[in-house]
Amino acid sequence: KIVSGLLQAAAYVYDAQYNRNIPFETSPKAVRLYYLYNHWSMQAATYFFIFVDLALALFEEPAVYLLPFLGKYATSLVEVLCLLVFFGRLVHFAQVTPRSVFWKDTKNICIMISILVTLIDLIVYGALRISAIRGIRWSRPLRPIFLINFAESRQIRRAFRSIRNTLPEITYVFLLFMFSVLMFSLMALKLFGDRNLKTVEGSPYFTNYLEIVFNMYVLVTTANSPDVMMPAYDFSWWYCLFFIVYVIINTYIFMSVFLAVVYNNYRKHLKNEIRKLAYMKRRKMIEAFNLLKVKEGAEFVVKEDQWKHLVKLVAPDISTSHRELLLRISDEEQKGCVDKKSFVRLADLLNIQVITIKLHSHPLDIWFPHVYNSTPSLCIRSMVRHKGFVWMYDVIILINAVFIALDEKNPYISYAEWVFLCLYIVEILLKLYTYEPRNFFARNQFWNWFDTSIIIAALIATVLNTALRSVTIYNSQQVLDIVFILRVLRLIRIIDSIQRFRVIMNTLINIMPTMLTFGGLVLVVYYIFSIVGMEIFQGKVKFFAGNTTTPHALYCGNPALKDSTFARAKYCKNNFNNIASSFIVLMELTVVNQWDELLNGKLLDNMETSENDLGGEEGTTKKKLKGLMFKIASKRYRTVDALLQRMFEAEIPPEEEGPSLDEILNLSPNDAYPKNPVFDNAA
Amino acid sequence: KIVSGLLQAAAYVYDAQYNRNIPFETSPKAVRLYYLYNHWSMQAATYFFIFVDLALALFEEPAVYLLPFLGKYATSLVEVLCLLVFFGRLVHFAQVTPRSVFWKDTKNICIMISILVTLIDLIVYGALRISAIRGIRWSRPLRPIFLINFAESRQIRRAFRSIRNTLPEITYVFLLFMFSVLMFSLMALKLFGDRNLKTVEGSPYFTNYLEIVFNMYVLVTTANSPDVMMPAYDFSWWYCLFFIVYVIINTYIFMSVFLAVVYNNYRKHLKNEIRKLAYMKRRKMIEAFNLLKVKEGAEFVVKEDQWKHLVKLVAPDISTSHRELLLRISDEEQKGCVDKKSFVRLADLLNIQVITIKLHSHPLDIWFPHVYNSTPSLCIRSMVRHKGFVWMYDVIILINAVFIALDEKNPYISYAEWVFLCLYIVEILLKLYTYEPRNFFARNQFWNWFDTSIIIAALIATVLNTALRSVTIYNSQQVLDIVFILRVLRLIRIIDSIQRFRVIMNTLINIMPTMLTFGGLVLVVYYIFSIVGMEIFQGKVKFFAGNTTTPHALYCGNPALKDSTFARAKYCKNNFNNIASSFIVLMELTVVNQWDELLNGKLLDNMETSENDLGGEEGTTKKKLKGLMFKIASKRYRTVDALLQRMFEAEIPPEEEGPSLDEILNLSPNDAYPKNPVFDNAA
Repeated sequence: KIVSGLLQAAAYVYDAQYNRNIPFETSPKAVRLYYLYNHWSMQAATYFFIFVDLALALFEEPAVYLLPFLGKYATSLVEVLCLLVFFGRLVHFAQVTPRSVFWKDTKNICIMISILVTLIDLIVYGALRISAIRGIRWSRPLRPIFLINFAESRQIRRAFRSIRNTLPEITYVFLLFMFSVLMFSLMALKLFGDRNLKTVEGSPYFTNYLEIVFNMYVLVTTANSPDVMMPAYDFSWWYCLFFIVYVIINTYIFMSVFLAVVYNNYRKHLKNEIRKLAYMKRRKMIEAFNLLKVKEGAEFVVKEDQWKHLVKLVAPDISTSHRELLLRISDEEQKGCVDKKSFVRLADLLNIQVITIKLHSHPLDIWFPHVYNSTPSLCIRSMVRHKGFVWMYDVIILINAVFIALDEKNPYISYAEWVFLCLYIVEILLKLYTYEPRNFFARNQFWNWFDTSIIIAALIATVLNTALRSVTIYNSQQVLDIVFILRVLRLIRIIDSIQRFRVIMNTLINIMPTMLTFGGLVLVVYYIFSIVGMEIFQGKVKFFAGNTTTPHALYCGNPALKDSTFARAKYCKNNFNNIASSFIVLMELTVVNQWDELLNGKLLDNMETSENDLGGEEGTTKKKLKGLMFKIASKRYRTVDALLQRMFEAEIPPEEEGPSLDEILNLSPNDAYPKNPVFDNAA
Repeated sequence: KIVSGLLQAAAYVYDAQYNRNIPFETSPKAVRLYYLYNHWSMQAATYFFIFVDLALALFEEPAVYLLPFLGKYATSLVEVLCLLVFFGRLVHFAQVTPRSVFWKDTKNICIMISILVTLIDLIVYGALRISAIRGIRWSRPLRPIFLINFAESRQIRRAFRSIRNTLPEITYVFLLFMFSVLMFSLMALKLFGDRNLKTVEGSPYFTNYLEIVFNMYVLVTTANSPDVMMPAYDFSWWYCLFFIVYVIINTYIFMSVFLAVVYNNYRKHLKNEIRKLAYMKRRKMIEAFNLLKVKEGAEFVVKEDQWKHLVKLVAPDISTSHRELLLRISDEEQKGCVDKKSFVRLADLLNIQVITIKLHSHPLDIWFPHVYNSTPSLCIRSMVRHKGFVWMYDVIILINAVFIALDEKNPYISYAEWVFLCLYIVEILLKLYTYEPRNFFARNQFWNWFDTSIIIAALIATVLNTALRSVTIYNSQQVLDIVFILRVLRLIRIIDSIQRFRVIMNTLINIMPTMLTFGGLVLVVYYIFSIVGMEIFQGKVKFFAGNTTTPHALYCGNPALKDSTFARAKYCKNNFNNIASSFIVLMELTVVNQWDELLNGKLLDNMETSENDLGGEEGTTKKKLKGLMFKIASKRYRTVDALLQRMFEAEIPPEEEGPSLDEILNLSPNDAYPKNPVFDNAA
């Protein structure tokens, strides 16, 4: 009974720590299955198969890499395998969670329907294939559903939800915007329609209302500015005012209002989501506490040994000293038990990354103390620690940059490359001689890792390239390309020397998780459009490589494109003939349409975050315990979400238990939780 | 002595109310001159002459409207007049402010030098003209200095200061960005330089480093996407990744960082400016208090009659009942005197716009009560008040929109226009019959004013047009254009019927002041560039109107433009031949370069503001006093600045006097005022 309670409590704490919301049955078997379900290897496997499933588009017709012989059947087989894995994962989840909850969750229903539909599609397609009829694999656009709906992709789901929530508000602004475009178009029709003006191409100017609306709509994107205005402007310069007013209102003001509404709504809904998460975490920790509590004196507490067992279960791989540290924090007065308030904090404490900095001596100091501490050795070590050493290497990097830009054909420059490589290797060796290697390659020493791996990779690639050249006379293009890229990447190091640049780079590295979520979103959208695009446009535009002499090459193999700007600009490779091309076309379309606004909002938040973080860094506590040194790095607070969550948690009074789970899930961004008046001011 | 003190105190309060910082001498004469200096007519005159000075460019060579005969001398004469006015204004200011302060202020020095330099330029130009030598009026780009440096343009100056303050921070990001561009260019040179690739035009692709840097820089603006990528992409689709990574890093990530840095800095410096203003206001109010205080019991107070005299001096045009209301608020316990805390609030109280809503009866109700309250009259009145009435007119407007779009030539449609006009006039008459006219045309009834003026203007213009047509056979084009525009503008009314649209429109109207500041900034920049551009490019590109047959028209009168895209697209009118054309060219360049980001930041702030305002609106107090009804509208809190100021003021504890004036002026955004620990958390 007690062991079962402990297991269950551990599962609650685990859930709270990772901000999940997986309701599980309380039977010991279910709890054990729950652990298995959340094991990193199981999650990694799920992701692996999701990406295999998505990557199938590379090999399916129209393929980027056409598999030989039985390839077509191989992709189908792999797809069936993926479906089996997804089904297995779902069954596993069904074992963990109570039946009623399982069938209420749209995510599960979605996955099940997708599996079923895909299977039907596969069977129909196979049957048609055997009868030599060409079918369409119409279930392929459904594949991103697996990426979105498995419980692991919480962030992407939240982003989608935010977008969906913003739609109603945006609609009103969009309607007003369209109203304005229609009004201006009507005005343009009345002002210019009867003037007998001609466009540059000689067609009548602004005589058809629908054409005007289209032109004015395009003008909002400034794509046809100033062409659309020129005929009216040539007629009288007063008419220019009409277009200027139009651009100011519709391009600048309305676009700004759009952005502002999106950003405001995004923030509002994100805050609500985060508030839900904060309450959920609190509630789970209280559930866990209630399972383990015993009465001691006036209040309920959790005994120290119970607490230790719990932590061991939740986080099996943290060190004993780390656990001792956590206990010290949770049980400050060393009463041998943890009270409710401290217990609730456990989920957060577990999230704090503790880097154990062992104050090692340098191995050479241990093995050859006399040599290592001799005058020349000390001299070298102080030289390496000197600022001038860094500057010297900055100068070397700059000289290297000039050499890279010079012509490769010159043999002296080719030799210089070896000199630079040697210099860099010497630098790393000197640093390893001076600094303790385990500290030098500590987990948070990003730049050291970066430098060393770039240099070693460059060394390997250069040696490989030289070896290939001496054997086969000509260079391998791929290897050479890699050598070039690595050589140029080496120059990035110069950023690290300048404090200001380092700060900016760290900010950029910190927003990576948010960028990844955004990338996932883009992947889902691109994938669906690519698959659909391929079915519709495949083969419509053909690319003829290199020095082909067929006349088809002049019009991309499609007579309709004869003399088109598309063919003249040699855009033939921008087609939907395989998934890679499709992605690139979509990317090109995106770039010209400038969707960077959404990202801006997130970055703004993050700048604030990083400023706050910088302020807080001084306060990072270093605790000495049993000769070990801990450095507490706030690993999980990198994303905006995490920061917002911390904010909301600070607002929930510690003695408050929060609303019930059902209430939490139905919280709306507009109603502040009634018991907590502080929210009103903060929201 | 006492009267002088009162005058001086009133000047302090006046300064605090309008957030000025004009230190004045304490002699009665100086204070009286100070009042004159701040009189609205003097300010309006200054602005008028500043704009006359700027508008001179319309008439100076190269002129938009060439003045006949002695026109050239007329502009010079007007300019001398303007300079005299500016000098007079400056001398006036010198009389008001202590000499030491006057000579320390860079604004004054700037104006003086500008006046002097312009005079020298005028004399030299005139002398050259008499000797028939063509001189250059090189002092013309200095004219916007008057717009910036007169004390009235505080907002524009603040915007300029914000931009200047942001520069250092931006520089680092820009350097990192350039570093990234250079690195990628180097990589591109190494990857594509030796491939013998050709661009669409047949020139070698990516072989010259500087050309690559230029191309890559342009790619950041996505202007040459995807053209710049196509040769490499055609060669191998892997190379496409290079460009995708480049665009993601340099276009999306770096541009977002730029925006974020600008926005953050803008906010930071704005907060500092506002904090200065808040302290300044507090200090001035305390100075005023100290001039008037008398000891009563334990504390210092200002007597009621003194206070009333003061308010009369500061705001002579507010009504007695309004003043009584202010006194009631300042002296809540009706002790016959105002304490320090209430006194300090006076500057804000004076800023609150009080709209006196007199609960009139309808004049018809007074004159013909029997008729007005008869059953048919009541019936009409309830009909007009009914929602259906609004809906009916919305439908009429929609039908009207269709009629406007239809062909004007048809006589029936021409008659329909009269029908619609009549319907709208009937609507206004009905509303005036139902609602009290003075309330209907109250100052805050924007939409009623808008409707009525549009309808009346349309009526006048249509009548005028018909009259002209019957007299002169053909229409006057200008009048017809105005009729068309008015007709379409009528349709805007439909927005007012939908609550959501009204909210958005109100937000847009509220950000007008911020937009105006922005417009001033743009005006200054455009003006300087236009004048310089005209001197350099004037006459280089010529426009030949309409159906000219000269061959010059084909290449804009400049042989260098033969067969250019510029001439082919008929861009000849985009030239620097006069100030209007120059402004339009600059506007076109701006539109394509998309500077809307800065505006976004301001709008974001304003959205928050307006949300807060909506929340606060319920709290708007309506006080009944002596049978009058006051509605307090927060007129001066419309701009972001005002809101920020209110915020900071709330943070200064009421008993605190703040730092001294010199300390205030030297406040930096990074140091919170030491006496006030609250600031640290808030900033």
